[in-house]
Amino acid sequence: MRTPVTELLGIELPLLAFSHCRDVVAAVTNAGGFGVLGAASHTPEQLEHELDWIDAHVAGRPYGVDLIAPATYAGKGEGGDPVGLWERIPAAHREFVDDLLTAHGVEPPEPPPVGRRRRPGLTEEHARDCLDIAFAHPIRLIANALGVPPDYMVARGKAEGVAVAALVGTRHHAVRQVEAGVDLIVAQGTEAGGHVGEVATMVLVPEVVDAVAEAAAAHGEEPVPVLAAGGIVNGAQMAAALALGAAGVWTGSVWLTCEEAETAPATKAKFVAATSGDTVRSRSRTGKPCRQLRSAWTEAWDGPDAPPALPMPIQSLISEPALRRVDRLAEGGHEGARELATYFVGQGVGMMNRVRPAREVVYSMAEEFAEAVERAAAFLEE
Amino acid sequence: MRTPVTELLGIELPLLAFSHCRDVVAAVTNAGGFGVLGAASHTPEQLEHELDWIDAHVAGRPYGVDLIAPATYAGKGEGGDPVGLWERIPAAHREFVDDLLTAHGVEPPEPPPVGRRRRPGLTEEHARDCLDIAFAHPIRLIANALGVPPDYMVARGKAEGVAVAALVGTRHHAVRQVEAGVDLIVAQGTEAGGHVGEVATMVLVPEVVDAVAEAAAAHGEEPVPVLAAGGIVNGAQMAAALALGAAGVWTGSVWLTCEEAETAPATKAKFVAATSGDTVRSRSRTGKPCRQLRSAWTEAWDGPDAPPALPMPIQSLISEPALRRVDRLAEGGHEGARELATYFVGQGVGMMNRVRPAREVVYSMAEEFAEAVERAAAFLEE
Repeated sequence: MRTPVTELLGIELPLLAFSHCRDVVAAVTNAGGFGVLGAASHTPEQLEHELDWIDAHVAGRPYGVDLIAPATYAGKGEGGDPVGLWERIPAAHREFVDDLLTAHGVEPPEPPPVGRRRRPGLTEEHARDCLDIAFAHPIRLIANALGVPPDYMVARGKAEGVAVAALVGTRHHAVRQVEAGVDLIVAQGTEAGGHVGEVATMVLVPEVVDAVAEAAAAHGEEPVPVLAAGGIVNGAQMAAALALGAAGVWTGSVWLTCEEAETAPATKAKFVAATSGDTVRSRSRTGKPCRQLRSAWTEAWDGPDAPPALPMPIQSLISEPALRRVDRLAEGGHEGARELATYFVGQGVGMMNRVRPAREVVYSMAEEFAEAVERAAAFLEE
Repeated sequence: MRTPVTELLGIELPLLAFSHCRDVVAAVTNAGGFGVLGAASHTPEQLEHELDWIDAHVAGRPYGVDLIAPATYAGKGEGGDPVGLWERIPAAHREFVDDLLTAHGVEPPEPPPVGRRRRPGLTEEHARDCLDIAFAHPIRLIANALGVPPDYMVARGKAEGVAVAALVGTRHHAVRQVEAGVDLIVAQGTEAGGHVGEVATMVLVPEVVDAVAEAAAAHGEEPVPVLAAGGIVNGAQMAAALALGAAGVWTGSVWLTCEEAETAPATKAKFVAATSGDTVRSRSRTGKPCRQLRSAWTEAWDGPDAPPALPMPIQSLISEPALRRVDRLAEGGHEGARELATYFVGQGVGMMNRVRPAREVVYSMAEEFAEAVERAAAFLEE
């Protein structure tokens, strides 16, 4: 099939798959879709390693990279001093986490010694290092997960012929992104996993398609393509997205229960069992509203006794070490850890009920897409 | 066109329009859709009057009625004693409303004298009276807006050949409704106006379609049709709904800015100006989570100093008289009242930017629907 996105990226199916797992990225790309490696928390060295591996496994087929190159972040202008950030965690927050873990039989992790406090990746220096690595590989797309991509990212995309994509949750942000020069807009509804706004996919996509068309018309240009994201885990939803005016879909959650996915096993099992009502939009992991599986961790942070979440990236300094330990213990069958375990996932989790190879998911989506379009067309013809 | 819903209801376009305004109901029915009169707060006498009017204006074309026949409600088993319900409003709640209105320059309304306290409509006796009126008219559908319809409603629909519809917000509730014998399920996503759950339309519709098909297969029956609801205000979204497996759409918000709509003028103006991010899901009007336009009223009730909302229907006893007064003052240009004014509306409000006759909206939706299906089919063929 052919849409403005299959044209732009040189793919057969307008299905983009965001995943932290290189195996998923390669499998989707090899099946005719487009894998996007989520690398926001990678070091430059890790990113290099992963992209080398992908290159060795996709035989030149197109793929992309997703980073966070933020405009603002806690500690900006302070040189990203890791020690300073750790010291900004209030005692009440440390105690809250320690008590929560202890109540579930999990021993709280110690903060790393000062000399080994890794710098959070949310700085310009880090983003530039990662961009250098990414552009040294044959990527076809670079995405910024949060906010307007910085000028240096847009300029480099243009110079090297790599499409720059950005995720938005409002019509207004879509217009700002187009004005900043992005080549592809991902309109992500509130039902998506990860950082999300409040407007649902069914409303956001036609709004953003309309806004992007208006902005283009004002400059006498062709509108950039819009991808729909949020809750999309099957081909009928892909058809719905295209009916709404999208040129393709951006997916994330559906790959977390694939055979290849590196999702913590206890969390994967929770995802397979979960209903669409089992997610929550909470600040408890990153400091910004993020949709994730409801668990004893999110319930406690959203409860009346919890301190307010800290700004990004400080909240992650307390949540990530705790939840990594939780994942390890949960894998060994630790009951309290299983109750706490959670991960980013969208409402589509209610339909993610089987563990399948990523390639099979791509093929199913293509088939379901064709069936859905034919069903709608048949209604029209009768 | 033909879908299981056009067959069931004898209509040309699978577009159901919920409205409290009889003119909208008649206009949509006359344009080939299906109007549903929202009569949850009507007295039996009012309902009789409205249905007589509709009969005189639709020349035998099909329409329906939407009621609330609730299974549980505050005051159940107490004979629905209106005096008792008024006395259950805590002093703190009265003071909160009085202070909020006063702060906006609106004089708080006095509670009505004991002898004139109208019984809230949420009792079985009231529902039975209204059903008698409705079934004495040539209705083709009766809907229950909240929860599983009571046995007497389902039985009467079957006996008189009138389709019984029910609104659901979860897959689980859809199965319960099918088991209770309803003929038509409305899967209503969180982006809808009024009483809504948390799951978005893009996820809920395929989930409910799947659940209804499974439940039918278990009994060796044909599945009942599913309508998609939530955020749907144009024909591209209607095409998306059908691609998701729905047999049609149920709409509400889009009719509130029609020429015919009886929406309070100041609120209509707010709707036309609002973005999709300007709604909020709040208990502040009815006691149950209800999506409505964000205003000084919802902000105050969702603020840290507000008392918790009272159970249905007690919250309405304090909110409705206050908001009726607000609407009257807002119409006269009262600044504080304009800030407070709000009404139920979904996220689709962001695309409701023009005041048009209802008939024109129906025709646009039919056209946009065809265009969207053709667009998706063209992607597939290339």
